[in-house]
Amino acid sequence: MSDIAHLGPVELLTPKAEESLRFFVDVLGMEIEHQEGQSVYLRGWGDYQPWSTKLTESDTSGMALLGIRAWDQEALERRVKKIEATGLGEGWTDGDRGRGPSYRFRDPDGHVFEIYYESERYSPPPHLKPSLKNQPQRYVPRGCAVKRLDHVNLLAADVYANRVFGVDTLGYRLYERIELNDGSEAGAWMSATIAAHELIYTRDAFGANGRLHHLAYWVDTREECLRAADIFLENEIHIEAAPSKHAIAQGFFLYGIEPGGNRIEVTTGGRFVYDPDEPCVVWTEEERKLGQAWRVKTVESFHTYGTPPVPQAPTPA
Amino acid sequence: MSDIAHLGPVELLTPKAEESLRFFVDVLGMEIEHQEGQSVYLRGWGDYQPWSTKLTESDTSGMALLGIRAWDQEALERRVKKIEATGLGEGWTDGDRGRGPSYRFRDPDGHVFEIYYESERYSPPPHLKPSLKNQPQRYVPRGCAVKRLDHVNLLAADVYANRVFGVDTLGYRLYERIELNDGSEAGAWMSATIAAHELIYTRDAFGANGRLHHLAYWVDTREECLRAADIFLENEIHIEAAPSKHAIAQGFFLYGIEPGGNRIEVTTGGRFVYDPDEPCVVWTEEERKLGQAWRVKTVESFHTYGTPPVPQAPTPA
Amino acid sequence: MSDIAHLGPVELLTPKAEESLRFFVDVLGMEIEHQEGQSVYLRGWGDYQPWSTKLTESDTSGMALLGIRAWDQEALERRVKKIEATGLGEGWTDGDRGRGPSYRFRDPDGHVFEIYYESERYSPPPHLKPSLKNQPQRYVPRGCAVKRLDHVNLLAADVYANRVFGVDTLGYRLYERIELNDGSEAGAWMSATIAAHELIYTRDAFGANGRLHHLAYWVDTREECLRAADIFLENEIHIEAAPSKHAIAQGFFLYGIEPGGNRIEVTTGGRFVYDPDEPCVVWTEEERKLGQAWRVKTVESFHTYGTPPVPQAPTPA
Amino acid sequence: MSDIAHLGPVELLTPKAEESLRFFVDVLGMEIEHQEGQSVYLRGWGDYQPWSTKLTESDTSGMALLGIRAWDQEALERRVKKIEATGLGEGWTDGDRGRGPSYRFRDPDGHVFEIYYESERYSPPPHLKPSLKNQPQRYVPRGCAVKRLDHVNLLAADVYANRVFGVDTLGYRLYERIELNDGSEAGAWMSATIAAHELIYTRDAFGANGRLHHLAYWVDTREECLRAADIFLENEIHIEAAPSKHAIAQGFFLYGIEPGGNRIEVTTGGRFVYDPDEPCVVWTEEERKLGQAWRVKTVESFHTYGTPPVPQAPTPA
Repeated sequence: MSDIAHLGPVELLTPKAEESLRFFVDVLGMEIEHQEGQSVYLRGWGDYQPWSTKLTESDTSGMALLGIRAWDQEALERRVKKIEATGLGEGWTDGDRGRGPSYRFRDPDGHVFEIYYESERYSPPPHLKPSLKNQPQRYVPRGCAVKRLDHVNLLAADVYANRVFGVDTLGYRLYERIELNDGSEAGAWMSATIAAHELIYTRDAFGANGRLHHLAYWVDTREECLRAADIFLENEIHIEAAPSKHAIAQGFFLYGIEPGGNRIEVTTGGRFVYDPDEPCVVWTEEERKLGQAWRVKTVESFHTYGTPPVPQAPTPA
Repeated sequence: MSDIAHLGPVELLTPKAEESLRFFVDVLGMEIEHQEGQSVYLRGWGDYQPWSTKLTESDTSGMALLGIRAWDQEALERRVKKIEATGLGEGWTDGDRGRGPSYRFRDPDGHVFEIYYESERYSPPPHLKPSLKNQPQRYVPRGCAVKRLDHVNLLAADVYANRVFGVDTLGYRLYERIELNDGSEAGAWMSATIAAHELIYTRDAFGANGRLHHLAYWVDTREECLRAADIFLENEIHIEAAPSKHAIAQGFFLYGIEPGGNRIEVTTGGRFVYDPDEPCVVWTEEERKLGQAWRVKTVESFHTYGTPPVPQAPTPA
Repeated sequence: MSDIAHLGPVELLTPKAEESLRFFVDVLGMEIEHQEGQSVYLRGWGDYQPWSTKLTESDTSGMALLGIRAWDQEALERRVKKIEATGLGEGWTDGDRGRGPSYRFRDPDGHVFEIYYESERYSPPPHLKPSLKNQPQRYVPRGCAVKRLDHVNLLAADVYANRVFGVDTLGYRLYERIELNDGSEAGAWMSATIAAHELIYTRDAFGANGRLHHLAYWVDTREECLRAADIFLENEIHIEAAPSKHAIAQGFFLYGIEPGGNRIEVTTGGRFVYDPDEPCVVWTEEERKLGQAWRVKTVESFHTYGTPPVPQAPTPA
Repeated sequence: MSDIAHLGPVELLTPKAEESLRFFVDVLGMEIEHQEGQSVYLRGWGDYQPWSTKLTESDTSGMALLGIRAWDQEALERRVKKIEATGLGEGWTDGDRGRGPSYRFRDPDGHVFEIYYESERYSPPPHLKPSLKNQPQRYVPRGCAVKRLDHVNLLAADVYANRVFGVDTLGYRLYERIELNDGSEAGAWMSATIAAHELIYTRDAFGANGRLHHLAYWVDTREECLRAADIFLENEIHIEAAPSKHAIAQGFFLYGIEPGGNRIEVTTGGRFVYDPDEPCVVWTEEERKLGQAWRVKTVESFHTYGTPPVPQAPTPA
């Protein structure tokens, strides 16, 4: 049981605002909920909050801010106290559109977070009212038609320090991790629910700080991931990794690079963790060399590329 | 081996031109290839010809004309001779957009056909050029994104007479049929290829002539049929029969009624017939009472409703 | 956040032990973990506990006992106190194979439960060791290859009283319910996690007590539900409801009657509930008349049949 | 229109008879129709002939013989005349189990073929009778449960010479081919039906003769290909290429190496060719470098490995 309900919304930066917006709307199939200043607020048809993704024009790419919703007011206060104790807290803000008081902090790697409890529920305009009342919005069959923001993978110079923060300070559960032969940690998969992962840290190959590996959007079926690959292809979205199955967490994936340079995953599947005492699965360096679940070798850029770019790193071709 | 390459294009009538067009474009996801007079020429992303469906405004619904492409010029001439011998021929026409000389005739039930050989191949405009060169058009992820016209089911007062015409005169192969206890034929499934069916006759419950049971559009996966049901639901398209599997031919289906009143199927699957000597499968009245493949009872309107409507028949609710 | 980790294992009774066992092993594809006396302990390849289903020969059908795992020792003690306060507690038992001290009680309708915390994790024999270490057992491609026990639907004479017990005493969250025009409750869907449902109560059409509506086993994809229908058909398992999508909770289903008479569901999908303040969705009598998600009318026996049988109720044909 | 109905059955050699048999029966899920001498006759649940694959113990691997069924007796005689004219004919044989007189010949590369017309249809024993009468055998949910033999890919030192033989002498249609920058042909995809391919030739990297690239078995859905990858993994079958989509012909694939060393594909999808005048799609060297449909780079062994092995070629790891 966790003090955290779920992750999100997220704010993403792009130096190519128009092309990125076209990607999120026409290729991923999200809806524009609101526009303000240099930002567009976007939602999937299954997001229960008004928006899950804020796309903001910037001179670079990367993640500007990651929201986390606490389970209730007490949980929020408990977590803020723990964050303050680490010295990483930055204080209360008014939050953003549709959410209440938010406490801003940084993880040890420097990514900016806001934790909050109060949140509006989405109320669809008439043309987006769903046929089934247990669905926040009607299903709009455009592009990949992603359902909702699912998880975020952050690069960190020191994975271990950040996942300890995630577990001890934020209250996440640690489900899987990679331990290299030198004892260091190369990746950590955490969740606040039975879902296989929600907040992931993987090692920044260049030791840089505050970078994003990818944002992942959920679809309900593997067939939709396969279809998404066709859609990426037809829209000239660079496919970094074609649909296949991860060994870790067993999620099904498609990875592409949106026009602004950020890596985006379309995902489904992944194991459910029902055991309250689930031991963390530790993957060794040798096991990781076997590749993904079906022995697909991971493309090299997947281990090096992140946003914002660092001068040393090549962009996926 | 058949003198017929395939069925299509088809001309469909609608008393609600605008709503029907919105259905074909936004719900089924077809492209407008051309507009002329009261007609719109439509295509799926996998139709190799310029268009497969001509939607024409009219004071009623139903099928105006069904095209059949002959394998080559000799095959065309052979078939025209056979048709003329039946007295059902009506003579040569200039065909329609994108096809050459066509021979018009009626089947014994009065449906209008044109058989032709010369045909253009589709040449996509720049924004519809596909990424894979073995595909006629790019995949457009809008609505159900149907691939192509697949098959047509015609109502006939006398199924037997029409399928004999289909086999003997047109050169179709008969794969499956329903024989009632009184010896009469209630349905016949014919094909020119290994695909399970292309031209189907089923009994008109009112003994009317020249009516349409349904047009079927292909998608590549069953998941797309399931998704199409969500799309029909969200767009207030009456779902007459939710996705399931036919016993006959084993096709997977979704049936809905488009705004003009015509029954439209989204289909995939169906068995392949590789045996050149395949015996026709004969279904008895008792077997048909078992329902579809998974024992789903067929909804009553499926046995009675067709277009254009007859005064005696109720419209599916 | 809930004191309950998850539901299960379950003990099911069958008057046809051999045929039922063949169903669970050959048709559903479960493994025999243990046999003892008149009972066989069965598991899906994804059950993290040694077994999820105990099949016991009896003179009738129905559910003998439903286990619930508490999140930890404190949660267990909290819940036992609450149960004792209702007067429905029956005292501590030694539990069953692979689990520790269990507190036995009845819900208001008389179904027998045991709540426990201590539980073994499954340790596979060599021939069932999985290739991926984050999976409890290798995937065995036999029959429907169900992954794990997913949820249980219990019939109750008074749904409202039982769901109040479920929420207040056990600590479940109520996600959806049916309220008839007379204000009475016809069904209630509860969960301890983000999964759409885990413990369901629906009205016993005969006002009987302690009966089972169905047990549901999970598969990861809708395609596996469709395939399961073929497998049921080929093995002469009565298909009560062919694969389709529920409106409530949006789960995808296949319902059949196993040889012992109990209704078994193969299920996947269903919405995830991330909002900690999710309001309960209330379905009206009129809305339920629309049928399932795609307007499929629910077969009558689904509203009346349960196990053990009552003299008044017909068995599904 | 072709004189050929379809390809098959095929005879495959294995130096590890027992392990190979376990692969075909337990992993692919085929049925043993007959055993005789060093051979086992195997069938998929959808093969209309008694068997499609004859597995024969040998001191090496590779394909011993490929059957082709002619459309009728006249077609058979026409083709035999053409074969005799090439000087590659070897004369009439009694055929094999369940088929009539067969004419044996070699393609220019030396692969042994037999063309025949007379063939038995499969008559299932009681325990394999299907529930649906338009299916040759009941669906048996074991392993990958492949439906039928789909296509064969043969290595050839001179692809061009062999596909000319395939088209001119056998009567196949050529749908796609690879033309390298030096003008030579690296691959040719031929079919006798609307299915995307049936007989394929690809270049033998070592200029060897008579070798096999792979046999492909059909499943009806992509989900079954994904599932097959799990099954291969759990059964320690080397996965050479995990599930993905080919650019050529657009088939969905999984490639593995069976214990005897032969490459086996589990396949579905692939485009349908309805145009009688379909122009052959020609892929250039540059286009092939883009990889498969979703830009997956083809693993190197796919271009070099075949059976029987040649000393120069490495076995896929």
